[in-house]
Amino acid sequence: MRTDPPAGLLEAFRAYERALGTDDLDALDRLFAPGPDTLRGDPTGLLVGHDSIAAFRGARGGAPARRLVEVHVRTVDDEHALVVAVTELLRGGRGQQTQLWERGPTGWVVVAAHVHTSAAAADTRVWRVLGDPLVAGAAVGPLARRAVAVKDLFAVAGQRVGAGNPEWLADADVEGSHATAVARLLAAGADVRGVARTDELAYSLAGTNAHSGTPPNPRAPGRVPGGSSSGSGAAVALGQADIGLGTDTGGSIRVPASYQGLFGVRTTHGSVATTGLVPLAPTFDTVGWLTRDADLLAEVGDVLLPTGSTGTWSGRLVVSDALLAAAQDDVATRVAAFADAAGATPTDRWDDVDLGAWAEVFRVLQAWEAWRAHGDWVRAHPGALGADVAGRFAVASTVTDAAGRAAGAARESIRDRIVDLVGDDVLVVPATPSVAPRPAPAELDAVRAATLRLTCVAGLGGLPAVVLPARRGTGPGDLPPVGRRAPLPVGVCLVAAPGRDRDLLALARDLAGTG
Amino acid sequence: MRTDPPAGLLEAFRAYERALGTDDLDALDRLFAPGPDTLRGDPTGLLVGHDSIAAFRGARGGAPARRLVEVHVRTVDDEHALVVAVTELLRGGRGQQTQLWERGPTGWVVVAAHVHTSAAAADTRVWRVLGDPLVAGAAVGPLARRAVAVKDLFAVAGQRVGAGNPEWLADADVEGSHATAVARLLAAGADVRGVARTDELAYSLAGTNAHSGTPPNPRAPGRVPGGSSSGSGAAVALGQADIGLGTDTGGSIRVPASYQGLFGVRTTHGSVATTGLVPLAPTFDTVGWLTRDADLLAEVGDVLLPTGSTGTWSGRLVVSDALLAAAQDDVATRVAAFADAAGATPTDRWDDVDLGAWAEVFRVLQAWEAWRAHGDWVRAHPGALGADVAGRFAVASTVTDAAGRAAGAARESIRDRIVDLVGDDVLVVPATPSVAPRPAPAELDAVRAATLRLTCVAGLGGLPAVVLPARRGTGPGDLPPVGRRAPLPVGVCLVAAPGRDRDLLALARDLAGTG
Repeated sequence: MRTDPPAGLLEAFRAYERALGTDDLDALDRLFAPGPDTLRGDPTGLLVGHDSIAAFRGARGGAPARRLVEVHVRTVDDEHALVVAVTELLRGGRGQQTQLWERGPTGWVVVAAHVHTSAAAADTRVWRVLGDPLVAGAAVGPLARRAVAVKDLFAVAGQRVGAGNPEWLADADVEGSHATAVARLLAAGADVRGVARTDELAYSLAGTNAHSGTPPNPRAPGRVPGGSSSGSGAAVALGQADIGLGTDTGGSIRVPASYQGLFGVRTTHGSVATTGLVPLAPTFDTVGWLTRDADLLAEVGDVLLPTGSTGTWSGRLVVSDALLAAAQDDVATRVAAFADAAGATPTDRWDDVDLGAWAEVFRVLQAWEAWRAHGDWVRAHPGALGADVAGRFAVASTVTDAAGRAAGAARESIRDRIVDLVGDDVLVVPATPSVAPRPAPAELDAVRAATLRLTCVAGLGGLPAVVLPARRGTGPGDLPPVGRRAPLPVGVCLVAAPGRDRDLLALARDLAGTG
Repeated sequence: MRTDPPAGLLEAFRAYERALGTDDLDALDRLFAPGPDTLRGDPTGLLVGHDSIAAFRGARGGAPARRLVEVHVRTVDDEHALVVAVTELLRGGRGQQTQLWERGPTGWVVVAAHVHTSAAAADTRVWRVLGDPLVAGAAVGPLARRAVAVKDLFAVAGQRVGAGNPEWLADADVEGSHATAVARLLAAGADVRGVARTDELAYSLAGTNAHSGTPPNPRAPGRVPGGSSSGSGAAVALGQADIGLGTDTGGSIRVPASYQGLFGVRTTHGSVATTGLVPLAPTFDTVGWLTRDADLLAEVGDVLLPTGSTGTWSGRLVVSDALLAAAQDDVATRVAAFADAAGATPTDRWDDVDLGAWAEVFRVLQAWEAWRAHGDWVRAHPGALGADVAGRFAVASTVTDAAGRAAGAARESIRDRIVDLVGDDVLVVPATPSVAPRPAPAELDAVRAATLRLTCVAGLGGLPAVVLPARRGTGPGDLPPVGRRAPLPVGVCLVAAPGRDRDLLALARDLAGTG
């Protein structure tokens, strides 16, 4: 292949660099091939189509200033050449861009580009503090050298707790001892790699944070990671931690697991001590964790969960059309297919439940408890919270004690009914009603409401729930269909009687092996 | 451009994936085009030529296990096509590879590849612990929100000092207060981003560490970053910090500055307090720092350096052939060209100095002091140090008190002579005798000996030294010659009378503006 550039290419390349330097969007758009096939990839994801690329450029506010230090050309013919350039960024670090150029009717245009630049010290949307390790665990143990991302609600000795809010962090004292769950993981040999971001005070399911930003979702670029255990989930999805320690009050483990294609468990309420944890709504708060595979999910359970199961267990999988209907059609279809492949039996026991009414009881009681836990702090720190969480606390502040107690009483009977309906079965439900949404505030509110209708079942019942990705595995040798975008992840959720956490984890292991 | 793959391409692509999965080096070599023009780039750098790529593959021990989640093809003609694939790594995260394939005489081969995968949580060769920030500085000040990488020899309150050695770290207590230099930077508004790696006990110039690995040198891929302020330098070069706080005893700021194309200053001995610092050789130890530009280098000086200069100063630049001769020819040529462009006058004042004898006095006295500082610890921790530093301490342990005192006496007269020779001039010398070497132990020993002959001048003299890159700047619009590899950095060092640090920093600012 020739290494001398074809006529006009270098001029076009130079024009591109100039346009990038001045963020001349019109020129950049003209220099990228029109149509749906143009490609542009970087470490945040691959964009397909001229319009997606133009939209990305319009939103990013310019590329980092740089100079070219190397340019290599590989020429296919007079109308096609590859340009590989090494760049040096003014902010430090280097980058590379690889561009396939084509001479079209309007001149030279880029038909495919691949770009990377040196990574930041750490992704501060994911981590607040980290080390190698931050806290070393026991030398030996079942979790030896597994790296844990600890949600910023758990006490880690020597660190302050930030709870997702800078003013909370500023008020916090350095912790003298570890939260119980953290201490047990360390004793089992796991290392704390760092403190991971959380939605503010865990009072959100989106995975956004007005202060530290939205952690990336590597399996669904441009979409939210899910929360509130957002940083723990993203750290695991990115391969930056093995175990994402988090909490689940109304879905804060299940939602990031579903959106990011992870395994996750919300434990039976009360089964894992919440000592050393910032509360949200104590009668719902549970400890949970996220992993990339079912084996490690269960191995962490062996360390954190009580031995000896309580509750009933047949191991029979059941699936309810009434509950599937709470998800969007595409998600319901995928979860139904999973249930079918796993041999689940249809059940009509859930046909008469009013998920809307249950979700409302959950919402009111959670709000009442959250205000009792944090109302004083919220009042003393006006303007400290992001708009979404501030709005939620504002609503919470209006829940009267009478309303809170009424919701508490309603919850008692709903819990009994849920425990009865689950019985000794394993209920297969969608973990979330949709794949990860884009971070548009209005959409996120609607998604939250729809999500709580599904997630409140385990929440109100105090039940354990294990999430696994609803996908057929493809092996290292398999080739996906050429040109098809990868499907966005969504989770299947297995729910069982209180205390059957270990059985659920074992079941998830079996199902993942066949999935 | 067509999106359907030409005949045989997908089979070759699949064979490549299979070979990658099994680390079948022969197959991978066959599937990359032979000859000097084949390209392969990733975030560690761009390789040019089939043999470089094969050598890289042979050394890395296999690619991380992955599966393909998207494959896109853009077909130029029946013999040329681009394949863009999105991968999902078993260890978490995603990647992308872009390959230009060509059908040659032996079938389809890759002529250029660009690969990236999700970044690690942090580069632990650069950082031991970091945060957002790790320690927040004052809200306002001349260095507000500048991020500092603190060499792991300085006390940072709330952290232990590791000194580049895991056993040292394990023995260390959590610091109750900051080292003086750290405290002053924080008071000026800078934030501590994290604690950066150092060569063990700072007793090395290479930038390697047997425990945490060799930090990358982004401007010289595959070569050492220089040390011992290795992590501080790499953090700045990578854009992961703005200020790299370090120390310079025998060149530990000047060497990483030179190898990485950074600005750096070694301060006049005694001018910046070393309180809160692990010593190496106290009569030589100085505080220093590294930046990406001369302005910030000087601004840090405004915070850390005493006001009011001592010593003499004409501002006249001089260059000595005798000192240039201590560098390799290519480096001497570049430094001479820089000196010439800066208007330096040749001087013969240094023609009679015996750099070898001076370096030997430096070596013996440094060793004697280092053993007095750390001999007890080294003896109490057999096997704790990497081979290179352990060897250096073993030699240090043989320096008798008589030899140490004799070297100290010799140093007194050498210092007087150096101060006299420098006079009120600014001496322009190579910061290092060569560009960054590859990390081969035997080569590094020879490089160290050659380096000390140059760096001992400021060391023995207690003089300030400022390093700036010896290169002509190219602007954001400039195109480097097509096909030429970027030159490796090397530094120019400016040396003046004790106490003229601020003047040197101002001069470097002027020279950088014209460079």
